[in-house]
Amino acid sequence: MRASQFTFATLKEVPSDADVISAKLMLRAGLIRKSASGLYSWLPMGLKTLQKVEKIIREEMNAINCQELLMPVVQSAELWQESGRWEAYGPELLRIKDRHDRDFVLGPTHEEVITDIARNLLKSYKQLPVSYYQVQTKFRDEIRPRFGVMRSREFIMKDAYSFHIDQPSLQKTYDDMYRAYTNIFTRLGLDFRAVQADTGSIGGFASHEFQVLANSGEDDIVFSDTSDYAANIELAEAVAVGERATPSQEKTDVSTPNMPTCEQVAEHLDLPLSQTVKTLIVEGVDDENGNPTLVALVLRGDHTLNEVKAEKLPQVKAPLTMASEEAMKNAGLYKGYIGVFDLNIPVIVDKSAAILADFVSGANKPDFHTTGVNWERDAQITQVADIRNVVEGDPSPDGQGKLQIKRGIEVGHIFQLGDKYAKALNCAVMGEQGKPVITMMGCYGIGVTRIVAAAIEQNHDDNGIIWKTSSTGESIAPFTVAIVPMIKGKMKDAENDKVMQLAEQLYADLKTKGVDALIDDRDERAGVKFADLELVGIPHRIVISEKNIDENGEVTYEYVNRQDGEKQMLKLDEVLAKIGV
Amino acid sequence: MRASQFTFATLKEVPSDADVISAKLMLRAGLIRKSASGLYSWLPMGLKTLQKVEKIIREEMNAINCQELLMPVVQSAELWQESGRWEAYGPELLRIKDRHDRDFVLGPTHEEVITDIARNLLKSYKQLPVSYYQVQTKFRDEIRPRFGVMRSREFIMKDAYSFHIDQPSLQKTYDDMYRAYTNIFTRLGLDFRAVQADTGSIGGFASHEFQVLANSGEDDIVFSDTSDYAANIELAEAVAVGERATPSQEKTDVSTPNMPTCEQVAEHLDLPLSQTVKTLIVEGVDDENGNPTLVALVLRGDHTLNEVKAEKLPQVKAPLTMASEEAMKNAGLYKGYIGVFDLNIPVIVDKSAAILADFVSGANKPDFHTTGVNWERDAQITQVADIRNVVEGDPSPDGQGKLQIKRGIEVGHIFQLGDKYAKALNCAVMGEQGKPVITMMGCYGIGVTRIVAAAIEQNHDDNGIIWKTSSTGESIAPFTVAIVPMIKGKMKDAENDKVMQLAEQLYADLKTKGVDALIDDRDERAGVKFADLELVGIPHRIVISEKNIDENGEVTYEYVNRQDGEKQMLKLDEVLAKIGV
Repeated sequence: MRASQFTFATLKEVPSDADVISAKLMLRAGLIRKSASGLYSWLPMGLKTLQKVEKIIREEMNAINCQELLMPVVQSAELWQESGRWEAYGPELLRIKDRHDRDFVLGPTHEEVITDIARNLLKSYKQLPVSYYQVQTKFRDEIRPRFGVMRSREFIMKDAYSFHIDQPSLQKTYDDMYRAYTNIFTRLGLDFRAVQADTGSIGGFASHEFQVLANSGEDDIVFSDTSDYAANIELAEAVAVGERATPSQEKTDVSTPNMPTCEQVAEHLDLPLSQTVKTLIVEGVDDENGNPTLVALVLRGDHTLNEVKAEKLPQVKAPLTMASEEAMKNAGLYKGYIGVFDLNIPVIVDKSAAILADFVSGANKPDFHTTGVNWERDAQITQVADIRNVVEGDPSPDGQGKLQIKRGIEVGHIFQLGDKYAKALNCAVMGEQGKPVITMMGCYGIGVTRIVAAAIEQNHDDNGIIWKTSSTGESIAPFTVAIVPMIKGKMKDAENDKVMQLAEQLYADLKTKGVDALIDDRDERAGVKFADLELVGIPHRIVISEKNIDENGEVTYEYVNRQDGEKQMLKLDEVLAKIGV
Repeated sequence: MRASQFTFATLKEVPSDADVISAKLMLRAGLIRKSASGLYSWLPMGLKTLQKVEKIIREEMNAINCQELLMPVVQSAELWQESGRWEAYGPELLRIKDRHDRDFVLGPTHEEVITDIARNLLKSYKQLPVSYYQVQTKFRDEIRPRFGVMRSREFIMKDAYSFHIDQPSLQKTYDDMYRAYTNIFTRLGLDFRAVQADTGSIGGFASHEFQVLANSGEDDIVFSDTSDYAANIELAEAVAVGERATPSQEKTDVSTPNMPTCEQVAEHLDLPLSQTVKTLIVEGVDDENGNPTLVALVLRGDHTLNEVKAEKLPQVKAPLTMASEEAMKNAGLYKGYIGVFDLNIPVIVDKSAAILADFVSGANKPDFHTTGVNWERDAQITQVADIRNVVEGDPSPDGQGKLQIKRGIEVGHIFQLGDKYAKALNCAVMGEQGKPVITMMGCYGIGVTRIVAAAIEQNHDDNGIIWKTSSTGESIAPFTVAIVPMIKGKMKDAENDKVMQLAEQLYADLKTKGVDALIDDRDERAGVKFADLELVGIPHRIVISEKNIDENGEVTYEYVNRQDGEKQMLKLDEVLAKIGV
């Protein structure tokens, strides 16, 4: 590509509403332009990268015999009513009406449509397993679109769906997908982790997220420093260390006026925070008469509640809701001073809190806490459960090493759906025994547009974007190589210039070798070109200049690798070796 | 591709609501599935063809330095309010509200969005000319979706837009696009015509439609049998032949009870239909006091009104509206018996009607017509104008040959927009004189999904789809070649079968040569396979069978070309020559 015929839409100013570095750099480098809140156009520079991402994804999907198709963006409401999601899905689902006042949705996902296709297409177990994918525009009406294309409203996803006669077949395709995803994110040059993820309300089946490590990530992901264990914090199992000691103190009330938090009490009593407990009151499921109930959740003072875990408890109402002040007052509970004893409601105690002895709790009266509390002797446990978030240094649940926590950007998610959609939409095939069998399904998503932002979050510097060359030697940079001929005067007069001829020759040579090269033939100062090329993040820059042609016509090329920024003077074959051709 | 790993979704039954042959065949061949009214999914077989179409389009767009970008499907209403189309566009524009009750549209076209991008991107005349294209999903809320993907609600378009400092630059890019479109449709193997088209209310600038010739087309297109002249019937100039004769008859009222049509009167009077005239009363523009007016349009009895031409008359109100019975009664006009004389309203006479002498018109009284009418002597002409549709046999307006009329499917449209959108959205650049200049724009569309249907309308037979190999040797068939190994028993047991080995060898060889081949390794009867392959329209079919291997191991291949259906027994090199490799 000739830079003079390509849109460099670089900006000097950082757009004021760009909130993360990737959004700033994508706007500044002219990869995208904002059209409206959460709606972006991909300019030629950005689309080149996006299409490279799509190509890698397609290759890996095709390699595992996942077949590409294309479903409509606009979906009939009837299918969503059949699956039950017309009611269940929140306001992120953009519901629209056509000119005949019929209901439709802008698809945030395509389970319903693919299941509708499958129930028409699939007749016999002999057609299974089968999997389909598409690369398609999706819409999710985010209440507050942010982080550029990472949490935009319109975005491109690769979504795949598989159909199976039984769970082992689903597991096999799931494993194929896991490997394909690993290949994809490796080829994209991303530093990522596949982590166990929560399966939400469906439950029971496997789910993994593919998380790109970046400080701006919205997810907390947890790994062992020793083993392969990795999980989303929502799911990561918290292990209690040690056993409960024998009580050695008497239960004693102490005055703690205006000290409703564990931190205040621990400091006041000069005790470690881990020797205190907090009792959270949440709404329970209604009793047999339909009356509201309350549940007490007890955690160590230095731990935080894991809402996803708590919500899975059968006693707790979903979605998890803290009890109102009024409900607590009616139950004789004083916020900030709730004790673990004398409660007439279920007391669910986190594993780490359950092994404490001689600990501090609220006294169930205002401005008092109780020291020397001991389970069984002073307070009864209804159930011990894992309801806390893990913290750094916790033992890994696989018994190997300690846990670390990092921020991640979710770029992929694979999920064993089981029969949820197939059952609702009656997607059945004739089984081997001649009877209809509801199919098992998997679904597998990749946030295609989000990947570009995630790659930039991971690799950039003060001068702009850095596109990392992957371990497979691939790059999703808009161009792999930039050739900059240093010409005196205007480009249009440089046709017979020796430097220009060398540049053109190298450009033609790289094209022949299949390298996506850019020749910067713009009439701009070298400084402007270098700044643009660094901002956009072209991995290899080659400058050709008259001063580097010696009296014998021998040419030395100035080579700069965007990653390390080191300038080297090289012969042609050395330059080509750097590019890897 | 192995057929056993690919979805053949062929149907025996013709879906009942498929209204044209292409829709029937696309559904039967498993190219598409209907999801809801005007909404289709592209199954793997159809998507393969669609992607081949997209690839050719992209190559030709890139070849003329048109840069690809990607704009959002969902567009802000504000941009449409700026351009004035929020009000002007009909109910085909699907207006939606997001969760914050803000207005958006599902884009049926992207003039507003690209102009918004351009006004931010373009600063100086030095950046011009520049052109951008995208391949993107569009939505048009058709009142009655029909003809499968030809008039669906959601569809894929390639839409391009160019920006210029002046008209000559626009003309140059327009000419480039014209050539690129000619290349595209030629490479797609379509029998098409580029025809002059109406520029609608914008007026003044050039526009061409690319029409695929097919009986099911919705457009009438007109060509000379001798010259290059070709136009949409909306635009085709109607020429009057000969000069008006001197009056030879007296004006005489004749009784024509219950004969309101020219046909009835001509038959009753035993005169040629071309000797009668009809007078149509339409609504005129309001007079200076804002009162409604009427206009009479006079045509030869055998001619039909061209509404597009009539609407362009300054006296006529747009959109063209026939006068109500009440308005006619108030004006003393009797429907079916309106005369060309004694009218107090403008009388606009078509050129061919204006050269009649001694003709028949209504008598302006019920149940009477008048014979021997002559212009000037009996009736006054306000204006002579071209307001009729051309008919077969009319002289070509370029003076060469006679006109023919065929039906066409519009697959492309190029258009010089002038400054319509650039002015409304203030898309200006600094001109050479240092003053801001509003840019000139062109827009250029191709109906990508529609092309697949149009190709099928043009080439099919009783057995299914035929994909024509283009004059450039290209094909948009899902697969170019099908290899059918005739095996006894199950495919999974055939690994060491000589026939299977030959088939695999040929398959591998074709893949190496870049041929998109399908090996039909399905456990189906040969008849089922042949029927499927013919329905889907694979251009070349090669059957390998043990009976065609002689005692020396010499193999003869059964070759069938889908286009002519002729079966030939060939040696391998002859088969490859047929495929063109």
